[in-house]
Amino acid sequence: MATTGNVIKCKAAVAWEAGKPLSMEEVEVAPPQAMEVRVKILFTALCHTDVYFWEAKGQTPVFPRILGHEAGGIVESVGEGVTELVPGDHVLPVFTGECKECAHCKSEESNLCDLLRINVDRGVMIGDGKSRFTINGKSIFHFVGTSTFSEYTVIHVGCVTKINPEAPLDIVCLLSCGISTGLGAMLNVAKPKRGSTVAIFGLGAVGLAAMEGARMAGASRIIGVDLNPAKYEQAKKFGCTDFVNPKDHTKPVQEVLVEMTNGGVHRAVECTGNVDAMISAFESVHDGWGVAVLVGVAHKEAVFKTHPMNLLNERTLKGTFFGNYKPRTDLPDVVEMYMRKELELEKFITHSVPFSQINTAFDLMLKGVGLRCVMRMEE
Amino acid sequence: MATTGNVIKCKAAVAWEAGKPLSMEEVEVAPPQAMEVRVKILFTALCHTDVYFWEAKGQTPVFPRILGHEAGGIVESVGEGVTELVPGDHVLPVFTGECKECAHCKSEESNLCDLLRINVDRGVMIGDGKSRFTINGKSIFHFVGTSTFSEYTVIHVGCVTKINPEAPLDIVCLLSCGISTGLGAMLNVAKPKRGSTVAIFGLGAVGLAAMEGARMAGASRIIGVDLNPAKYEQAKKFGCTDFVNPKDHTKPVQEVLVEMTNGGVHRAVECTGNVDAMISAFESVHDGWGVAVLVGVAHKEAVFKTHPMNLLNERTLKGTFFGNYKPRTDLPDVVEMYMRKELELEKFITHSVPFSQINTAFDLMLKGVGLRCVMRMEE
Repeated sequence: MATTGNVIKCKAAVAWEAGKPLSMEEVEVAPPQAMEVRVKILFTALCHTDVYFWEAKGQTPVFPRILGHEAGGIVESVGEGVTELVPGDHVLPVFTGECKECAHCKSEESNLCDLLRINVDRGVMIGDGKSRFTINGKSIFHFVGTSTFSEYTVIHVGCVTKINPEAPLDIVCLLSCGISTGLGAMLNVAKPKRGSTVAIFGLGAVGLAAMEGARMAGASRIIGVDLNPAKYEQAKKFGCTDFVNPKDHTKPVQEVLVEMTNGGVHRAVECTGNVDAMISAFESVHDGWGVAVLVGVAHKEAVFKTHPMNLLNERTLKGTFFGNYKPRTDLPDVVEMYMRKELELEKFITHSVPFSQINTAFDLMLKGVGLRCVMRMEE
Repeated sequence: MATTGNVIKCKAAVAWEAGKPLSMEEVEVAPPQAMEVRVKILFTALCHTDVYFWEAKGQTPVFPRILGHEAGGIVESVGEGVTELVPGDHVLPVFTGECKECAHCKSEESNLCDLLRINVDRGVMIGDGKSRFTINGKSIFHFVGTSTFSEYTVIHVGCVTKINPEAPLDIVCLLSCGISTGLGAMLNVAKPKRGSTVAIFGLGAVGLAAMEGARMAGASRIIGVDLNPAKYEQAKKFGCTDFVNPKDHTKPVQEVLVEMTNGGVHRAVECTGNVDAMISAFESVHDGWGVAVLVGVAHKEAVFKTHPMNLLNERTLKGTFFGNYKPRTDLPDVVEMYMRKELELEKFITHSVPFSQINTAFDLMLKGVGLRCVMRMEE
């Protein structure tokens, strides 16, 4: 392409400081260096994690920064040493990577790549410790290696998943973060059997993706747990058969679930990050065979507590990261699940706006309205 | 047999009160009622659990009682409705049962039979709520449905495992409790892969049985953790390659293990029942693939605590009971492992005494000498 090897000037939404509306700026995007690719982003969605690091409460503030990590695009050019991708490939950027060389990548069980595991504090490329974004020569920080709130971005090749070019990027872009996280937690980690009873704590996009996984796995009873009663209506579209609001009960919600299910659920998946919900989720699974899976990220000082007998009675407690999916190896298959219509993604997309209206997407999420707002770059 | 249907008078070791030496008495053993069998015990070993309920510290005192649950014998007669066993069958009594009818028995994953799950407070038969033991008409309580410190005992058919009659009962009697518990925790629950690194906390008989399982599974590095340095020599016979005494280190033992193993062990099995050891075991497993299995029974007030991130980094925490073995379905196969010389049981037997010297066996265990003392009834 004509742009190969050159700096590209394009639009990006820049977070200049914590909590302040993003500002649309013209940025310069440097060419990809060794083991990097430059991607033309076509669609990007907004995920809670973007908002979390934009608010930067209790987090290291890294500003000015280009946020964004749930997206789909097309490879514009590739740096030295990149052999698996060529310009024109359809790709999903992923906030955590897969180097394919480390012990984790070589393990069948782990997706916690030693080299490219998520790093929320790093604002530069891993290769040379520099940013590829500038505005009039001033460096702008990256975010989790993806920075998809830009028409072009530079990403380490290990954080880019090549997918079926027939897949609609405005829809499968959701798979680069939250939906895969919840879906994989259910399908890869909780693994409910057909006909089983499953509880999901927290009915945001991740929790509903876990619910979608439970539906796909053939769970016959799917119990949603959320403090917001309005979530039930939406959850029904994802197969929710029962709804429990802990506020409606005087006893702990785990006791309510155990009573409802004659001893406990087969599987529980926790998607709130609240440590009390984690404990409730664990204690709501049946002895002998129950498995609880933690997805939500807890506060730094949180402590998970339970009586050891709850474990000794043959319950299992596991945590997962990005649904245990290895980004490059596994995500193409998740895209195919969508293509085969096994996985329904459209119902997660409740809003769509032009990229220029990105602050509207932030407002929707801050108000808790909808699930995913997809932003269209080419408008 | 001539004894069928009649009361049998025989010798039993009776615990008249907590902590007092057992007393050899002539007891009357009533015939088995519906779904019960009367078993002639040939060999019984002493397990910590017997001592624990004999001391009855912090437990409901149930006296006078005939303790004992690790044993081997031969069916003398069977009660109404018993079809799977006939007089002459070689059997192992088991302190927890398998009714084959309940949800747990029908589940592939659980061995926590609803009907016959261990009950340490019940001193009578489940069928009619009565004891089968009397001394001059005075009822003597049973213990965990087995009461093997008697030449004859009556057991629910669901707590009796029929085994290969060629198996030496003086050796395979160990499989009715502790050895199966540790072995199964490793082989059925932790499931280490060939070449993996395993840590075992607590090197008593159960821990060494877990170690035997690790050796059988082909673990290449087997780290024993114990506060008593004398345990290392014995553990070497079970495949122990490294020994860590937490007392030798100023930092928490989990940090020592993580450093020794470049990030953590593949599997950890906790066999002490100390909640701090449980936490250490869990936090010593590697992120991405580590599995910790809890075997030891904790104090009633104990609380397991850890930071949720230790789980979210893809660690698994599980508990197990009786090594996840279903007594009647699975134990015959464990006996065959011994018969094929895959499982080495002889090295667990450090002492052997006539039944009349049962108090010597108690003394040895109280002093922490040896692993298992097998008592011979017919001497």
